[in-house]
Amino acid sequence: MFISLDGVDGAGKSTQIELLKAHLESSGKSVSVFRDPGGTRLGDAVREILLHRQEIPLAMTTEMLLYMSSRAQLVEELIRPALESGRHVISDRYLLANVVYQGHAGGLSPETIRSVGEIATGGLVPDLTLVLDLDPAIAHRRLGSKLDRLESRGLDYMNRVREGFRSEAQGNDAIQIVDADRSVEEIHHQICDVIGRFC
Amino acid sequence: MFISLDGVDGAGKSTQIELLKAHLESSGKSVSVFRDPGGTRLGDAVREILLHRQEIPLAMTTEMLLYMSSRAQLVEELIRPALESGRHVISDRYLLANVVYQGHAGGLSPETIRSVGEIATGGLVPDLTLVLDLDPAIAHRRLGSKLDRLESRGLDYMNRVREGFRSEAQGNDAIQIVDADRSVEEIHHQICDVIGRFC
Repeated sequence: MFISLDGVDGAGKSTQIELLKAHLESSGKSVSVFRDPGGTRLGDAVREILLHRQEIPLAMTTEMLLYMSSRAQLVEELIRPALESGRHVISDRYLLANVVYQGHAGGLSPETIRSVGEIATGGLVPDLTLVLDLDPAIAHRRLGSKLDRLESRGLDYMNRVREGFRSEAQGNDAIQIVDADRSVEEIHHQICDVIGRFC
Repeated sequence: MFISLDGVDGAGKSTQIELLKAHLESSGKSVSVFRDPGGTRLGDAVREILLHRQEIPLAMTTEMLLYMSSRAQLVEELIRPALESGRHVISDRYLLANVVYQGHAGGLSPETIRSVGEIATGGLVPDLTLVLDLDPAIAHRRLGSKLDRLESRGLDYMNRVREGFRSEAQGNDAIQIVDADRSVEEIHHQICDVIGRFC
């Protein structure tokens, strides 16, 4: 099974991914966790440019294509081989993040992004995407002062991101919204409930 | 006017671009020269990964998408503004190189590459592409021993590149093949003849 977790930064993805991994492993499953962008040598180099080299100007289309290049390598080198060997895969973000951050919030056409995504991933989509939903104002307070390129885009942008995730989830059972304005344990239990319905 | 020069490495592109620039300037035109990949801060960082960091594994789709990200930034930051201000633009390679190197020679679908190229460039294509055509065995001898990622792919690959350029030029007046197995002056004169017919 291929699961991705997504949502605004500060919503608690990393913590929930660790808990979900442990939960799946406790029932005997082999689990690989990846982060997108990243995971491969190319992905780490691209991630550095995308998030931390903010002195390098990036047009929205450029940014989208860089994410796609990192994802193409991640799928080819790691995700597809892991799935083919029977492992479960959890990815910290995936294509939906581009559809929302550069599309709904950034002004590019979501359909255009999906068509490039189809090429970058060879059509590999998660069986289930869990979106941790949280008011960006609350998420922002958890992030501290050292913000990356995307986190620096301000509250209006992050509110469009949140609405983009919600809009993509409508009528699509493969994207499930999880209320992240609760305790770590409560969020984890809701995630396990959703996964249980899909496994 | 937007002109690109292309062809296998070692065919003499850089020399011919300098001569063409001087030729156009001598008739009073303002000319900007760019290289693709490169030209912008992002482009230079991506060029370094693509050509010189050969220890970083790249799938063919990843490679194609990295070129596209660099081109998207080059078009947005430099080529489109130069054309809009009335300058002539000469680009050292452009989208056709991806269609040929990762498509015809690399195994990706040329149509797929063109569709991503349309998105990366916003549909901006050169008015004219000049392909310097040379037997890859001759071109290879001019390159010396320090080969980049693409130059290292060997003669079979480079022969497919040459055939790809020729095949793309068939029935397309916007791509003109120039015989590069002649003196620098003879090649320059043929290029000026072709440009004259298009200006």
